[in-house]
Formats: sequence, structure tokens, C-alpha cells
Amino acid sequence: MNKIILLDKRPVGKVSLNDFKFLQSEIPQPKEGEILLKTLYVSVDPYLRGRMNDSKSYVPPFQLNEPIQSGIVAKVVKTNNAAFKEGDIVSGSLKWQEYQVSAGTGLNKIESDGNSLTAYLGILGMTGLTAYCGLLEIGKPKAGETLVISGAAGAVGSVVGQIGKLLGCRVVGIAGTDEKVEMLKSEFHFDAAINYKTTPDLKKAIQDACPDGVDIYFDNVGAEISDAVLVNINKFARIPVCGAISLYNGDTSSNGLRISSVLVTKSALMQGFIVSNYADKFPAAIKQLTAWVKEGKLISSETIEEGFDHIPQAFIDLFDGKNKGKMIVDCTN
Amino acid sequence: MNKIILLDKRPVGKVSLNDFKFLQSEIPQPKEGEILLKTLYVSVDPYLRGRMNDSKSYVPPFQLNEPIQSGIVAKVVKTNNAAFKEGDIVSGSLKWQEYQVSAGTGLNKIESDGNSLTAYLGILGMTGLTAYCGLLEIGKPKAGETLVISGAAGAVGSVVGQIGKLLGCRVVGIAGTDEKVEMLKSEFHFDAAINYKTTPDLKKAIQDACPDGVDIYFDNVGAEISDAVLVNINKFARIPVCGAISLYNGDTSSNGLRISSVLVTKSALMQGFIVSNYADKFPAAIKQLTAWVKEGKLISSETIEEGFDHIPQAFIDLFDGKNKGKMIVDCTN
Repeated sequence: MNKIILLDKRPVGKVSLNDFKFLQSEIPQPKEGEILLKTLYVSVDPYLRGRMNDSKSYVPPFQLNEPIQSGIVAKVVKTNNAAFKEGDIVSGSLKWQEYQVSAGTGLNKIESDGNSLTAYLGILGMTGLTAYCGLLEIGKPKAGETLVISGAAGAVGSVVGQIGKLLGCRVVGIAGTDEKVEMLKSEFHFDAAINYKTTPDLKKAIQDACPDGVDIYFDNVGAEISDAVLVNINKFARIPVCGAISLYNGDTSSNGLRISSVLVTKSALMQGFIVSNYADKFPAAIKQLTAWVKEGKLISSETIEEGFDHIPQAFIDLFDGKNKGKMIVDCTN
Repeated sequence: MNKIILLDKRPVGKVSLNDFKFLQSEIPQPKEGEILLKTLYVSVDPYLRGRMNDSKSYVPPFQLNEPIQSGIVAKVVKTNNAAFKEGDIVSGSLKWQEYQVSAGTGLNKIESDGNSLTAYLGILGMTGLTAYCGLLEIGKPKAGETLVISGAAGAVGSVVGQIGKLLGCRVVGIAGTDEKVEMLKSEFHFDAAINYKTTPDLKKAIQDACPDGVDIYFDNVGAEISDAVLVNINKFARIPVCGAISLYNGDTSSNGLRISSVLVTKSALMQGFIVSNYADKFPAAIKQLTAWVKEGKLISSETIEEGFDHIPQAFIDLFDGKNKGKMIVDCTN
């Protein structure tokens, strides 16, 4: 039998397990030109929250009673398509199903090259590309500049910080537990890291950690954390806005400090983006990321949850900051 | 005798006449290498409000008991500097004094060429350059795109809109009186204009005026007006942030809609700027602006107040939107 996870209700505020529905069905059979895929690893990402709302965004909303879709690594278990053979490993945007058929379009074949398969959902996949393209194309870091990252211990943030260090920046991370702060400093060699939950005066803490001010602020979070960074930015600061996880569930005030004055005063640039805007940069980016991983200069940080049934809970855990690095669900057992 | 206007108190909230002090003194005498200038026209500009606060900004704050300084056109009435002769007309950042001495550095000589002298404070001065550089360098308008301008009847806004039309954009202005709205449509040929003070649903009014969405939002104002525009922006929108006049006096809530989500969703760019960032573009910009003025394609809109003593009131009037176009004080009588 096949298992499928559908969107049952559109979440209001915080997502709950009740918003999902599990379905069992026959394992589908591939028609001519199709392949049958078995799901191995599933990526859960904050941006999926936006797709659960019925609102116009950069990707169309999920439909009720349809399977959720995200980045997945899968194995070809049957093939009626000459481009794929049994045993091939692929990655792509696929459905939360144990088994699914596909025409193969939009899938990338993963060549076995010594990297773990989960890397293709993280550091060598959308996560790494998001970090690399957002930082380089918008942040335009120069050696000696100061880079501050919110959500620094998350999937994208931890890669941004490591790339920042490789490019010669002073890197300061903001995260939500002492354990994450410790990891940023010891594993990823950030110059400083701040626990925003236990720091009484975040503005002051950022000021202290950034004696020369903030040149680049890579924002994954938004809201109060961003307010505290913005008062510390330098003239001509660049702010790639990658996400606003604090706002996605609507549980944080959507009102806050107006920022147009500070943007004018500092001639600062703020640019929202999604990774697909930079598709033309992907080949060069993957080449660079792969080289850094191979040289051991870039470490992939992952939190692995076990079992297909745990996908919804793993997704929910993202919003409580339970992940360090990339959150992935292992469905191989 | 000479008259001088000093900053007497740092304004709290809205500026009042009591924040200024008038002083009389002897007319100064130019030393060797200096010139004596008589003030002809004084530009009053919203950004001066920021310099009245004792806070770090892109220009240093005014000092208490020192003269205010702004863009001024003046005449050389005595000269001990071979580079200037009596009767020369100059423009530059000068003090609010009827007479002042200068070493001549930083002054631009104005050649008599058929333009009115006030144009060098407005459309062929800082105002025109701000409009031109902000729109072209950040807004990057393409023919057929929709450009929305807040503070559209102000000095910069009215030039931005005209340039937008010259470049083939659909231009929609937001202003605060029916008279200004009428002026934008009839004199400056805006495609639509909205009185934000009398429009019950500004979001809806902008949506109606921009059937294809907003590609460029040139923001002079900030706050609620910007909130209403932002919900209507298109993917890859550009937002040059030129000013935030609604926030300068601190009389509007400095809290409002958080915008990082919309920036991500729309991959939008927001860039604060001041005109001096684009100094390398000035020669080409002035050439183009002069050509458009000469061809009658670009009209200078000015509100002229009479008399040196009225400079502080003219400045205060800016924040009540009493000006149409560039606010200038005529001190020639």
C-alpha cells in the first residue's frame, strides 16, 4: 500500500497536525513514458507555510485534499522511460507520498559521488543555492565587512555564515538557543553569535558584536530581530530578505518599526528574493559549493527526523526552531 | 545691516517658529580670496528637518545658535577672489543670511541661459537630480510599466512623474488636495491621481488606478500611504525611497505594517538614497534635464514665498503640504 499526506485544512495561525490528513491507496503503476519513484528523503521548509494559505504568492497555493509537495530525493523503482533506469536516484519537487509516478520532467539525476544523498536537499540543493545566490547577488560581500544573519542556525543561515567567513567577512549570527549559539561559534566558526531569547537588549548586543557596524544583514526572520539589526546598519548596507519565518504563522505582530527612514538615512538596499530568480547562476554556484564541500570548507548541518509519518511534525517543529541546519525526514526505513 | 536666521531650539515633533531666532549684525566684509554674497532665492526642503535633530545621519546636524543652511542662489556683490566678478550669480549650500562671505569653494556659477534662476534650486538643481537619479538608477523604468509616486505634487514627485511619462510609463500620483490632484493630471499629464485624504479605501483606489499592478513605487512619504501601495506591487517591483516626510516630525506613528514578507513574496527591491550617491551621473543628468526643459517637455512647478523673514514659515508649510512643487523663498526685494 501507498501512503499520502494531504492538506486537509488551511491552517489559521500556527500549523497543527490536524491540518493534515493521511490517506492510503494502491501503489500507482507507471504508464508508458513514466517512472515509479519511492521517496527516500523529504525536505521540509518554512516557505511551504505560505503555500498553505489561499493567497497569491510566488508559488501557487496548495489545494485542499491534494498532497503537499516539497524537495524530495527518491529512487526509481520501475521505469517505462528510457531516460531513467531502475535504481537511479533523483531529486526534485515531489509529493508527500511514499510512492508516486512521474514523467521525469524537472527531476535531477544524482550521480553517486561521495556526497550523502541528503546534501542534495541541503547544501548542494535549494538551501545551498539560496544561501549562495542571496548572499553574493544581493549582499555583495567584501572582505572585512560585517555580515549579520538572523535564523543563523537554520538551513540557509548556517550556509550563509560559512560562505561569509570563506569570503573574509566578520560573521555574527542570531539564533534562539544557547546550543545553537555554541554550534555557530564552534562548528561554523562565526565570529560571534547571540541568543535573541535570553539577550535583554538585542540592539546593544548586536552593536557590541559589530564594532564597525553592519554592512550586510541576511534576513530569514523579520520582526523584532530585524528591528534590532536595522538600527546598527552602516551607510550603503545591503539586506537580502530571504524569509520572514517569524511572520509566516501570523503569531507575531505584523506591525512594527517603519523602516523607510532608516533606509533613506543609510542609503540602504533591501531586496526580497527567491532562489529561482537566480537560475542562471546555478551551474557556477553548484560548482563552487561542491568544491567547498569537497575541500571540507563548507559543512552541512542537518536535523534528521525518522519516518514518513513524521513529515508533518517535522514541518511544525521548524517554527519552534527545533532544527539545527536543514530539517530532513528520512523515509528509507 | 545683515539678517541671520539661527536654530534656537531643537524641534520636538512639529517644527514651530519658536525654534528659530532672528539676529541682526553688521554686513561682513570679504577678506583676501573671499567674496560677499547677497541671497536671492532660498530653497527649503523636507530633509532639513533631519538636520535639526542632534542625531547621526547622512549629513551632520545643525548646531544650536548657528545659521541654518540650505540650497541658495546668491549674487556676488563684492569680490576679493579673481575667480568671481561682481554681479556673478552662484548656487550652493549657503547660510540663511541676507549677506555672507564665502571663499567660493563648492559654489556653482550660473550662466545666464534663459532659465529662471529658481530653476537652479529646483528642476536643474538638487530636486531635478534627485528625481532623475532615483528614478533611473533605482526605479529602472521600462516603457509600459506602472509608476506610482507618493508626495507626487511635491518638488521631487512632480519631476519624477513627468520623467516617467517621458519614458513611456503609466504614471499615478498620490497627493493631499483636490487642487494638487487636478494639477498632476492637467499640467503634468499623469494618467491618474489620488487624493489620499479624501479616498476612503486607498488600497482599492491604487488597485483601480493600476490595473496591471505597480512596477515602480517612488516613495517620498512613507507610512500608511506606502502600506497601501505595497499591497499592489508586482513581482520584481522597485521602490526608490527618497524620503519619509510623514515620519520626519515624529507626528505619525513610527510603527506600521511589516514589509519583509511582501518583499520576499514579490522579490521586490527597496533602496533608500540621497542624491549625492549618484554624483558621477550628474553631468549626464543635467544635460538631459536641460534638454527636456528647453523642449518644453519638463515643466518646473514652484511655490514662491516672498521675503527673507518668511523662510522659517515656508519651511514649516512643507509639512502641511502647502507647496505645489518646489518651495522657494524669494529674497530679492
